[in-house]
Amino acid sequence: MRAGPSQEEIRRHNLGVLLRHVHLSGPTSRSELTTKMGLNRSTIMALTADLTAAGLVREELPTETGRAGRPSLVVRPEPRVYVLAFDIGVDRLVAARVGLGGVILDRREAIRERGPFVMDRVVGRLASFTGQMLKKTRSDTVCVGAGVAFSGGVRSSDGVVRFSPNMGVQDIPLGEELESRLGLGIPVAVGNDANLGALAEQARGVGVGCRDLIYLHGDVGIGGGIIAAGQLLGGQGGYGGEVGHMVVNAGGRPCGCGSRGCLEAEVGERALLEAAGRFGADIGRDAVRAVVDAADRGDIVAQDALARVGDWLGLGVANLVNILNPEMVIFGGMLREIYLGSAAQVRSRITTDVLHASRESLRLRTPMLGDDTTLVGAAELAFAQVLADPLDALARVGP
Amino acid sequence: MRAGPSQEEIRRHNLGVLLRHVHLSGPTSRSELTTKMGLNRSTIMALTADLTAAGLVREELPTETGRAGRPSLVVRPEPRVYVLAFDIGVDRLVAARVGLGGVILDRREAIRERGPFVMDRVVGRLASFTGQMLKKTRSDTVCVGAGVAFSGGVRSSDGVVRFSPNMGVQDIPLGEELESRLGLGIPVAVGNDANLGALAEQARGVGVGCRDLIYLHGDVGIGGGIIAAGQLLGGQGGYGGEVGHMVVNAGGRPCGCGSRGCLEAEVGERALLEAAGRFGADIGRDAVRAVVDAADRGDIVAQDALARVGDWLGLGVANLVNILNPEMVIFGGMLREIYLGSAAQVRSRITTDVLHASRESLRLRTPMLGDDTTLVGAAELAFAQVLADPLDALARVGP
Repeated sequence: MRAGPSQEEIRRHNLGVLLRHVHLSGPTSRSELTTKMGLNRSTIMALTADLTAAGLVREELPTETGRAGRPSLVVRPEPRVYVLAFDIGVDRLVAARVGLGGVILDRREAIRERGPFVMDRVVGRLASFTGQMLKKTRSDTVCVGAGVAFSGGVRSSDGVVRFSPNMGVQDIPLGEELESRLGLGIPVAVGNDANLGALAEQARGVGVGCRDLIYLHGDVGIGGGIIAAGQLLGGQGGYGGEVGHMVVNAGGRPCGCGSRGCLEAEVGERALLEAAGRFGADIGRDAVRAVVDAADRGDIVAQDALARVGDWLGLGVANLVNILNPEMVIFGGMLREIYLGSAAQVRSRITTDVLHASRESLRLRTPMLGDDTTLVGAAELAFAQVLADPLDALARVGP
Repeated sequence: MRAGPSQEEIRRHNLGVLLRHVHLSGPTSRSELTTKMGLNRSTIMALTADLTAAGLVREELPTETGRAGRPSLVVRPEPRVYVLAFDIGVDRLVAARVGLGGVILDRREAIRERGPFVMDRVVGRLASFTGQMLKKTRSDTVCVGAGVAFSGGVRSSDGVVRFSPNMGVQDIPLGEELESRLGLGIPVAVGNDANLGALAEQARGVGVGCRDLIYLHGDVGIGGGIIAAGQLLGGQGGYGGEVGHMVVNAGGRPCGCGSRGCLEAEVGERALLEAAGRFGADIGRDAVRAVVDAADRGDIVAQDALARVGDWLGLGVANLVNILNPEMVIFGGMLREIYLGSAAQVRSRITTDVLHASRESLRLRTPMLGDDTTLVGAAELAFAQVLADPLDALARVGP
């Protein structure tokens, strides 16, 4: 029951829209912005002037136009404005510095040993990575935020990690802890890795232009990020998209969540390795890749394992497509390998189990951002506040 | 990438917000509107004057204030402005005249015989009901739209019914046909009955104030309407919410859609009646009620049947709660009876299969609008255009 916005709110909204545009699409001429935003030239000029004064964009002559006449100035994002992005997966820790415009300017990565999540150790490592990267930045750079992708359920109201069966944690104030350890005075936003992956692929990946998509992220478990009508589906508390705990095989394999037959119990790393008779030796992404490679080379046990796992994956995806009618489903993380190795089973299940109208324009894809999908999502989460209200966000972090 | 709205767009938006408020909440004083909409008194006066001039609201002195001083005028919706609402279920046809403000002013209902959907017969019957109701209206009334709730998948772009396994139809231009048969020159909007039920319960029922809810509608089959962050989840084509075709029991009972083990195959009317050894004699809502009544009286076969069906229902709901993290799940139509007769099984499945964080504030409910949920949803669909832009909508239907 909210009334319309004030003039000042509109101006701030428009500043955010313009900045988001150049952040996602790269250098854009003023005349293109005029067309894209449906505003007149003088409004675009005023908005650009404000953003330039704030040091968020820079106006330049285009290098090459190929057209006669006075060229329209090009507005480009200022990469000296950057965020810190962190990705905490079951098997790896990544820290990166990502500039406005989305360029990864610097990164550090470490293998994480499996086993219980030790907050102090993880946060310590990420802080030390950050210190190394900050030493190398020039003095005129500005850090405007930080974002973390975490393999677990995150409460939307305060960023507390509520659960992560595969990390063995419950109710940890990860954002707060990292914020204090970094000591930079910048807010640290935390999000579920699959949710952030969905946002990243929609913003800069294979899902650009899609308003309804599902991103499935395989790690040890399976997470999901759902974008419906252009918005991330968070649900009441922010736990929406926990598709890994959809029961696909009632009474089936035990799951870390305490139930049985969950998608992640039937399709996750362990299910595949056990079915292939390879559980116990190697684990992780390389072990999964080895099964797919063996199947490719004609190994019948590996082929059967992939077919079985692919059938459950297909059933899970079919359910999601019936429920959500997305335009695209993206298979990321370890699911990329499993999907590529079992696409026939996945497609066959979809044909059998999905209503015709809901599958007629469905596309199945792998991430365009590769293994950086969740990391890029963490960066976008950090940029979100700046894009929502650029001047206010900048004022808060100071010069 | 849209810029902010113009002043005129804001005015039109505000007219819609004000009208929606009195449409849903009933007579409201100007001072309450000032508070609710966050606008000043003179703006509210101007908006109210516009809507009064258009004949959409009326301003009156309140009957009783209990306070000293000059009372604030009360703005009430004009029920002489009305829509036609139709509900086409597997077992019944309903037509109603619903006034602005949501009052059902008149209604006609008929039993529909099972068997294939004959467009001509259904549309003919609804048109004849409409004729009867229109004869009784006063000359100063204005019909501003019509909406149909249909038990099947409806394409959002043009209202064509794409599929309905339980009606045996595919690709029928229902809205167009009804529009031409009514001959009133008013547009007829068509929606999936469960989607409209979700909107109705959120607007005027048990879901008021909920931003994330699922409405499940049992007829012969099971449909679903998902509201996420306050918006109906349509998906790419408008087929979102087809939760009845989520496979809960892989390889289970055959379903009308061609697959096996779908929620509606395991929980629908037929599954229950067969499990209770009662299939073949009576069918429909009464037959379902009879099983629940028998279970209440201690009939062990009926109790077992309900427990079995309730277990699958619980599994389906658990999956939806993990995927969508809603605040509320509403069991409507025939599912109301099944849920009430098997609430223990449903709750037990949710406890076992749903992540703790996603169920800690979940509420399970039955519809406040009873058997009128989908009909009221059809009326709200018809009112939607008027509420989006009141003056424009009124100009289009004429005086």
